[in-house]
Amino acid sequence: MPIGTQGTVKGLTPEEISNVGVRMILGNTYHLYLRPGLEILKQAGGLHKFANWPFAMLTDSGGYQVFSLAALRKIHAEGVRFQSHIDGSYHEFTPENVIEKQRAIGADVMMVLDECPPYPSSETYCAESNQLTAAWAKRCKNAWTSQPPLYGYDQALFAIVQGGVYPHLRQLSARQLIELDFPGYAIGGLAVGEPADLLYEMTGVTTELLPVEKPRYLMGVGKPENLVEAVRLGVDMFDCVIPTRNGRKGQAFTRTGTLNLRNAKFKELFEPIEQDCQCYTCQNYSCAYIRHLFQAGELLGMRLVSLHNIYFFHTFMADMRKAILSDNFEGWRKVFYADYNTAQ
Amino acid sequence: MPIGTQGTVKGLTPEEISNVGVRMILGNTYHLYLRPGLEILKQAGGLHKFANWPFAMLTDSGGYQVFSLAALRKIHAEGVRFQSHIDGSYHEFTPENVIEKQRAIGADVMMVLDECPPYPSSETYCAESNQLTAAWAKRCKNAWTSQPPLYGYDQALFAIVQGGVYPHLRQLSARQLIELDFPGYAIGGLAVGEPADLLYEMTGVTTELLPVEKPRYLMGVGKPENLVEAVRLGVDMFDCVIPTRNGRKGQAFTRTGTLNLRNAKFKELFEPIEQDCQCYTCQNYSCAYIRHLFQAGELLGMRLVSLHNIYFFHTFMADMRKAILSDNFEGWRKVFYADYNTAQ
Repeated sequence: MPIGTQGTVKGLTPEEISNVGVRMILGNTYHLYLRPGLEILKQAGGLHKFANWPFAMLTDSGGYQVFSLAALRKIHAEGVRFQSHIDGSYHEFTPENVIEKQRAIGADVMMVLDECPPYPSSETYCAESNQLTAAWAKRCKNAWTSQPPLYGYDQALFAIVQGGVYPHLRQLSARQLIELDFPGYAIGGLAVGEPADLLYEMTGVTTELLPVEKPRYLMGVGKPENLVEAVRLGVDMFDCVIPTRNGRKGQAFTRTGTLNLRNAKFKELFEPIEQDCQCYTCQNYSCAYIRHLFQAGELLGMRLVSLHNIYFFHTFMADMRKAILSDNFEGWRKVFYADYNTAQ
Repeated sequence: MPIGTQGTVKGLTPEEISNVGVRMILGNTYHLYLRPGLEILKQAGGLHKFANWPFAMLTDSGGYQVFSLAALRKIHAEGVRFQSHIDGSYHEFTPENVIEKQRAIGADVMMVLDECPPYPSSETYCAESNQLTAAWAKRCKNAWTSQPPLYGYDQALFAIVQGGVYPHLRQLSARQLIELDFPGYAIGGLAVGEPADLLYEMTGVTTELLPVEKPRYLMGVGKPENLVEAVRLGVDMFDCVIPTRNGRKGQAFTRTGTLNLRNAKFKELFEPIEQDCQCYTCQNYSCAYIRHLFQAGELLGMRLVSLHNIYFFHTFMADMRKAILSDNFEGWRKVFYADYNTAQ
């Protein structure tokens, strides 16, 4: 899922994203709640209508942003109190009111309020935090079943497994949440600074327990190699800002690695970012032109590379899916590693 | 003509612009010569290919930018010496080499090197400047006929009438240039700070003399009311940054006046910028959403308003053309003034 934090995938139109084949994007409850605010979104008939996005949308619960962006956050059993990073105003997120907020946004998939322990955190801290996350998940589920959707379509609710980098806490968290029977499960609290081997170990420990018939979503991941390894471990869904954030800085993803298009070596390269790429950018523009746009500070450069990257990640995931369906994932994975990072 | 100073109409793709109906854009020789540089453009096969723009393109000669942007400019009979605003490097534009530069860019319409006196300038200064502009025009024409095009298609050359705000100097400049027999004529040195009545007086004094069968181009103009009055005085072509520059700041043009979409009054207005507008922006987004994008600092807001404005100016000009062809320009003009600036 490309990220549409504030109700827009940065720099791109809904059509540009859906033309790539993308059918689900992510919105951030924390940002949308603060701006434009839920009253506006309700009046608009939900974020789909407001932002002209006709396909699926998932919203995080806002918990992660409260912990990473907001000032003076204070966690208590009831919820979390914080100050807006925009104007310093005070707000409170509770399990019940984040469901209400996500109902108002109109997300097709809502997420429970969780506490995401920073890395590193002690085992004791993570164990206690797990209890809070489990209790909040239960309250979110109750709120979800008692608060009807506002716009005439169903909204699913996913739980979030936590537990830091402690296998038995990950397992405990997964079991507690599976017990509550959610439509889907996310793996949270990873890709927050821990080494890749811990990311994979914790992912594997969790996916071993999660029901195979329900979506498994690894939050905030990641780079192509992270996606390959996590898919191998049984993950189905991902979200990450990399395609657009790095694209706005001129970093393009290809099957042979990443390119920094601001680099002088692209000055006279009258070829697309990736020779056989079917994206709008590669079909119409050279690296030399895109480099010129970045050199000249032109917005179109950010658009073109963001779009290429979204296309890259989308087709990359689609290819993995095809390889799985044709029972050739391991072969596909070998080819990926043989090609990746061979770009000059 | 929308402005594509650095080889891109800011924030928009060629398709977005051509889908509106635009068939000619402007590029700036001064900027393109400094960055990406003419060697790059030659290797690319010209700016059309480099920037993926298949329709017509006009380039100014760079003279105006030398006078408005460059440091330490020094005019002499041969040409003008200046320092780049990017890196302080020294350069010289001459009548001959600006033709060479525009050949390399591949513009369908090239402009002569002229001196554009600032407003206000004395009559003596403007009279002397006129002589330089006339001499440079003659040298440009000679260069144009002696230097063949590089990419297999013809490139026209337009002269630029100067003369400050002195009617007899405008007439003298026009006569000198008409004598040289160019494919088209521009009116330069206006919209540089003089009052509107002087803009119109100088335009009228000039168009009275310019041949009716050749294009007349008023450079750097302008607001809707300026366009109406200049068309009435016989002008055919315009360029201006207003649609895109103002669009990036959230100012939208409509038949009833301009709107500042960052204004709080649009916060809950779930209607398009202009009710009956057929542009992509108005067909898909509300003022409330666009205001949110500007409040949140999102690039899409700049895109959406720029695109609406380009659509507005294009259809505005097309409507004037239709009114002229159906012999109803005066009636159309009355309706324009009755509606314009009635927006709240």
